[in-house]
Amino acid sequence: MPNSFGKLFTITTWGESHGACIGVVVDGCPPLLPLAAEEIQAELDRRRPGQSDITTPRNEPDRVEIVSGVFEGKTTGAPIAMLVRNADQRPAAYDDMREKFRPSHADFTYQAKYGIRDHRGGGRSSARETIGRVAAGAIAKKLLASKNAGAEIRAYVTRIHDIAMPADLVMTGANTPPLPFPAQTEIEANAVRCPHAPTAAAMIERIKQMRAAGDSVGGIIQCRVRGVPAGLGEPVFDRLEADLAKAMLSLPATKGFEIGSGFAGTLLTGSEHNDAWLVNEGHAHTATNRSGGVQGGISNGEEIFFNVAFKPTATIAQAQRTIDLRGAPTELVGRGRHDPCVLPRAVPIVEAMTALVLADHLMRQHAQNDTFKF
Amino acid sequence: MPNSFGKLFTITTWGESHGACIGVVVDGCPPLLPLAAEEIQAELDRRRPGQSDITTPRNEPDRVEIVSGVFEGKTTGAPIAMLVRNADQRPAAYDDMREKFRPSHADFTYQAKYGIRDHRGGGRSSARETIGRVAAGAIAKKLLASKNAGAEIRAYVTRIHDIAMPADLVMTGANTPPLPFPAQTEIEANAVRCPHAPTAAAMIERIKQMRAAGDSVGGIIQCRVRGVPAGLGEPVFDRLEADLAKAMLSLPATKGFEIGSGFAGTLLTGSEHNDAWLVNEGHAHTATNRSGGVQGGISNGEEIFFNVAFKPTATIAQAQRTIDLRGAPTELVGRGRHDPCVLPRAVPIVEAMTALVLADHLMRQHAQNDTFKF
Amino acid sequence: MPNSFGKLFTITTWGESHGACIGVVVDGCPPLLPLAAEEIQAELDRRRPGQSDITTPRNEPDRVEIVSGVFEGKTTGAPIAMLVRNADQRPAAYDDMREKFRPSHADFTYQAKYGIRDHRGGGRSSARETIGRVAAGAIAKKLLASKNAGAEIRAYVTRIHDIAMPADLVMTGANTPPLPFPAQTEIEANAVRCPHAPTAAAMIERIKQMRAAGDSVGGIIQCRVRGVPAGLGEPVFDRLEADLAKAMLSLPATKGFEIGSGFAGTLLTGSEHNDAWLVNEGHAHTATNRSGGVQGGISNGEEIFFNVAFKPTATIAQAQRTIDLRGAPTELVGRGRHDPCVLPRAVPIVEAMTALVLADHLMRQHAQNDTFKF
Amino acid sequence: MPNSFGKLFTITTWGESHGACIGVVVDGCPPLLPLAAEEIQAELDRRRPGQSDITTPRNEPDRVEIVSGVFEGKTTGAPIAMLVRNADQRPAAYDDMREKFRPSHADFTYQAKYGIRDHRGGGRSSARETIGRVAAGAIAKKLLASKNAGAEIRAYVTRIHDIAMPADLVMTGANTPPLPFPAQTEIEANAVRCPHAPTAAAMIERIKQMRAAGDSVGGIIQCRVRGVPAGLGEPVFDRLEADLAKAMLSLPATKGFEIGSGFAGTLLTGSEHNDAWLVNEGHAHTATNRSGGVQGGISNGEEIFFNVAFKPTATIAQAQRTIDLRGAPTELVGRGRHDPCVLPRAVPIVEAMTALVLADHLMRQHAQNDTFKF
Repeated sequence: MPNSFGKLFTITTWGESHGACIGVVVDGCPPLLPLAAEEIQAELDRRRPGQSDITTPRNEPDRVEIVSGVFEGKTTGAPIAMLVRNADQRPAAYDDMREKFRPSHADFTYQAKYGIRDHRGGGRSSARETIGRVAAGAIAKKLLASKNAGAEIRAYVTRIHDIAMPADLVMTGANTPPLPFPAQTEIEANAVRCPHAPTAAAMIERIKQMRAAGDSVGGIIQCRVRGVPAGLGEPVFDRLEADLAKAMLSLPATKGFEIGSGFAGTLLTGSEHNDAWLVNEGHAHTATNRSGGVQGGISNGEEIFFNVAFKPTATIAQAQRTIDLRGAPTELVGRGRHDPCVLPRAVPIVEAMTALVLADHLMRQHAQNDTFKF
Repeated sequence: MPNSFGKLFTITTWGESHGACIGVVVDGCPPLLPLAAEEIQAELDRRRPGQSDITTPRNEPDRVEIVSGVFEGKTTGAPIAMLVRNADQRPAAYDDMREKFRPSHADFTYQAKYGIRDHRGGGRSSARETIGRVAAGAIAKKLLASKNAGAEIRAYVTRIHDIAMPADLVMTGANTPPLPFPAQTEIEANAVRCPHAPTAAAMIERIKQMRAAGDSVGGIIQCRVRGVPAGLGEPVFDRLEADLAKAMLSLPATKGFEIGSGFAGTLLTGSEHNDAWLVNEGHAHTATNRSGGVQGGISNGEEIFFNVAFKPTATIAQAQRTIDLRGAPTELVGRGRHDPCVLPRAVPIVEAMTALVLADHLMRQHAQNDTFKF
Repeated sequence: MPNSFGKLFTITTWGESHGACIGVVVDGCPPLLPLAAEEIQAELDRRRPGQSDITTPRNEPDRVEIVSGVFEGKTTGAPIAMLVRNADQRPAAYDDMREKFRPSHADFTYQAKYGIRDHRGGGRSSARETIGRVAAGAIAKKLLASKNAGAEIRAYVTRIHDIAMPADLVMTGANTPPLPFPAQTEIEANAVRCPHAPTAAAMIERIKQMRAAGDSVGGIIQCRVRGVPAGLGEPVFDRLEADLAKAMLSLPATKGFEIGSGFAGTLLTGSEHNDAWLVNEGHAHTATNRSGGVQGGISNGEEIFFNVAFKPTATIAQAQRTIDLRGAPTELVGRGRHDPCVLPRAVPIVEAMTALVLADHLMRQHAQNDTFKF
Repeated sequence: MPNSFGKLFTITTWGESHGACIGVVVDGCPPLLPLAAEEIQAELDRRRPGQSDITTPRNEPDRVEIVSGVFEGKTTGAPIAMLVRNADQRPAAYDDMREKFRPSHADFTYQAKYGIRDHRGGGRSSARETIGRVAAGAIAKKLLASKNAGAEIRAYVTRIHDIAMPADLVMTGANTPPLPFPAQTEIEANAVRCPHAPTAAAMIERIKQMRAAGDSVGGIIQCRVRGVPAGLGEPVFDRLEADLAKAMLSLPATKGFEIGSGFAGTLLTGSEHNDAWLVNEGHAHTATNRSGGVQGGISNGEEIFFNVAFKPTATIAQAQRTIDLRGAPTELVGRGRHDPCVLPRAVPIVEAMTALVLADHLMRQHAQNDTFKF
């Protein structure tokens, strides 16, 4: 089931950019969770197009309907189906792409794999597919916030192109004292979703410059999670970081994932890198957190944090060399309405995928370790 | 099944560092594949301890037995069980670890998750578990080399600590002209498995220094795959890069994964980053390969390449602060026989996991696209 | 994923009897299959309520919409989402059931499991859920009919209450000469879907009597499949008959499954029961077919046939003793519009589930045995 | 993974009749369960060959070794690998079967599917494969007996050929007053495992007659489970009865499954068949139990019971018509040492599979319904 994710809290997404609607089925959601469409909508509004002057002008309200699995305001344990109509469709804008492969897009590969593709706006490969992930992630987030779980997820943009937050405000695991956990309001305070206002202003400026030049940029999103108990993650293959890595690399435009000290940590020696164990107010803690909250594939109770690399948007408003369906060289000028930079809208998507991984692992942990008493 | 990996070509590993044996069950292997224990052994010999003077002195022959699924020299379609006896066990060497948590190891997290742990040599969290992966990967490699597949995988060490191969010999996707595919003999020519001899010599020197200092180092392994047809990968969640990322992050000591242009690619603009399509001798090709052979989660026929970050070995021969089972502060001096640097022996493991992902995806691709004819 | 079925050709159903809609997502369907909503509709019309005077008078057109996965009349390899609006809802008819548990229904068990239930018409436990199965099964049937597959499935009612088809017209595996494969038109010629007209007339009469008496009846459906090649089925657990058994017992109201000689075959000795191998026009065949087309969990190329037992409809129009949500004894008179006998409408559902199992196994067989060439 | 069973408590079996050994890996077993090889052995001794004068004379001690997942007498949460050496191998006894297909065996179908087969004693299709199931089932049974679970499983033979227990001693769901739960000692008191001594004596006699005549017989095993809480089973596909049906039909030689009133229940009307709800000592109960303890796919707290049909053993000591690998007609006289009736040794296997299904569903129920608190 390539369109499903999760073992116990499972989502299945469906729908194309210019089809009738986009949807998701959540299977395995616990019953009795109070749930209203407005709660889902709040997260969808964070990813919807047209939300600011640095995102695509495609104007979609992206209104969600919950069409099953909720009865009198509570989940029932039955699958929760949610759908969003595609409103602002202009498929004619994509006529040129019926025949031509956009460079660094999924056009060629979908054609090679399936022998057919819905070329309109990328079809199934469109980032509109992530609507289903965000809708399902909103439920997972609510589960994680329930009284016996209490995990909080915060993603934000740390770098756009070469414009980066000050190094000492970015988690590396060496941060001593620990960096304060950023408030949601700080992140949502600007269009680029960077919690450091001066950097955010420069990032927005850079994105506007790029769009004006018909070009695009990428960057890095950092995600932090606090309140995750020790014990989540299922060695040896379903390690917590392995499932997070898969979740992130399953997102459009991602090219890299690193947790804790990541790639930079390879420049340290073991004696520099190890996180010493100590006791703080009766609780086991690590003096540093280069592990990123995960050791041996299992959460250790420290904050979990990781970085995700997003490449520059492939769709640009410049002429590019390419080939057509028959293999003849041709030229293509990007049309369609696109984001000059995907990161601002990717922030809630990263959070959603993180929430899905954690909710699933909490259920798995309970199943194996708390079902039977000896 | 947290100890299983793959959807159609599936492996299940079992066993602990100091248990009776380590094993793997391969389910879904095609029938009629000629298979001899010697072929498996050849790969195991590349990961076995004691193979050189920069690896752990633990001396294990790691002889593999195939105990099911092969009849008269050929696979039968039944599950292939393989096992390796643990020979050189010195569990007493680990007595200190029964009570104390080694920093940046899995000791604390296994205890927190399961309420019990086999402390001898890391038990289940030991890298000896990867024996099963390498044995299964040897079969996957053989499948990939079969006449209608023809894929070849080559991993090698590009950096140890801060000693790196010359930048222009490392794949970045911008390499023009394309870098030659390294020969297996070049990589196996030295103990560190770096195909650039002068760099390899410096790396070996650094590892020896570190060991002498009771310290350890990490680094980066690059993996390249050629001969993969366009069309592998299953959007939206089982994207090829997502499954590779999960495979790599499921390995002990890994902290990061990047494919194609990776993290560095975020410093480019879209017009710089896009891989233009062109036709070469009748075949579609990309002018550059910043995509790393994967677009939209599906292979595009170009070389696939990615980097994996390995942290410095957590076990070091220095006194470290830690706590014990009762939460009391204590000190621990690493014992047991360990690798001062895991990368040389991790090279065949990275290759094995890559082979497992690719064999599985080839089978999935065939199932969906070639079973029925319309 | 309790609401998903199949490994490679996978369906996920969602929706409740009186919710907004009922739906299904098909993941893994091969691309390039020509597919129109009318083809799905034809199968849905065979299961829809109100189709004859022996089914529920609930009047639902059950119009299907394909909302993803099909582009310009062909499947694309992307998930196919289909949905049907619930039109004729009269939830007030179920007010009595909010508080009371209907005997031999799922009311008590859903309440016990989830702590909540949608009581309107059975909610998720309603047989309306099978709409999704039939819609997905219509696609599977079309795959099975493709030129290199060629399997044909025919289910029909062999017994209602104690009114049974003549014994020599029912497959038992001992039938010599082989019974002719019934034509679809014979089965669809009457409201009860029994291919023997005189028996069908008596069955219809019995059902009407029962409805008049406020009672209900059950019976047996036999399903036959011809054209299945030898080799389908995946020992040791995913045996073809095991997956068929699961498929049938996952249907509402089913209490039994038997394949080939079934329960009656236990009265024979081995020498009586064994199917001798012989050669017929160059092809291996069995003289009898008590195996039911499956040996060792794998199809042997003979016709596959099995029986499914359906209990009498639990909803009856008579006063019954029961208890309420607080555990107090009470009485309940069945209301809502129900079928006095589920079998006529269950025929296309049995066919759909059979098609889903076979399509999935064909893909699995192809993946394991035809991907690589040695 | 066709050789795996279960979603959370998962087993993977491997091994052939005449290979080096037979084994199983249990993944997902809760940690801290006290476990000794002797406990596993006790169940294996109930299925081992040569245990009485009505079973195969093949003399195998079937000694189990636990080679991973248990540390200092307790499970650790890591996969539990167990293996049994094949001792009494006489592969030459099977030389005739290398070329010829035994009627109603899996010889032809394995050859057709895989293009190769291990002909010695049936290879992978041998019932020796069930050793792994029984070993894993012993662990599941122990979990079910833990203090917060408390479920007890009892299977026994109710009919051999046409020799049946008195009808009023066999569960049908109409039994009023309820039938006492048979004691394990009654069942183990005779070689055929029928709790009614006079019937058992007649059954044994019949089996001996059949063996003397070079023939074989089949029959029916009934399985009862008490102490299962209401709420187990995962609609809509992973209904408890659906998973039990799959478990039973995945066993060699089974041809049918029925739960509760089963096939006979189709002769009743709804008013006769429905199980009225009543309150007994403050607990909800049903007046009758034609549902067999399952309604809507979920356990209702009543006793679960079902019947399984086993065909007569295919291997008989008589000359039979068959064909060889080249399709030429030939004759075959059964050799090898076989059971003239599989049912006595199948009793512990049916129990094992039942335990596996229930343990898995308990974990799933717990995961979905008890992980989060609202």
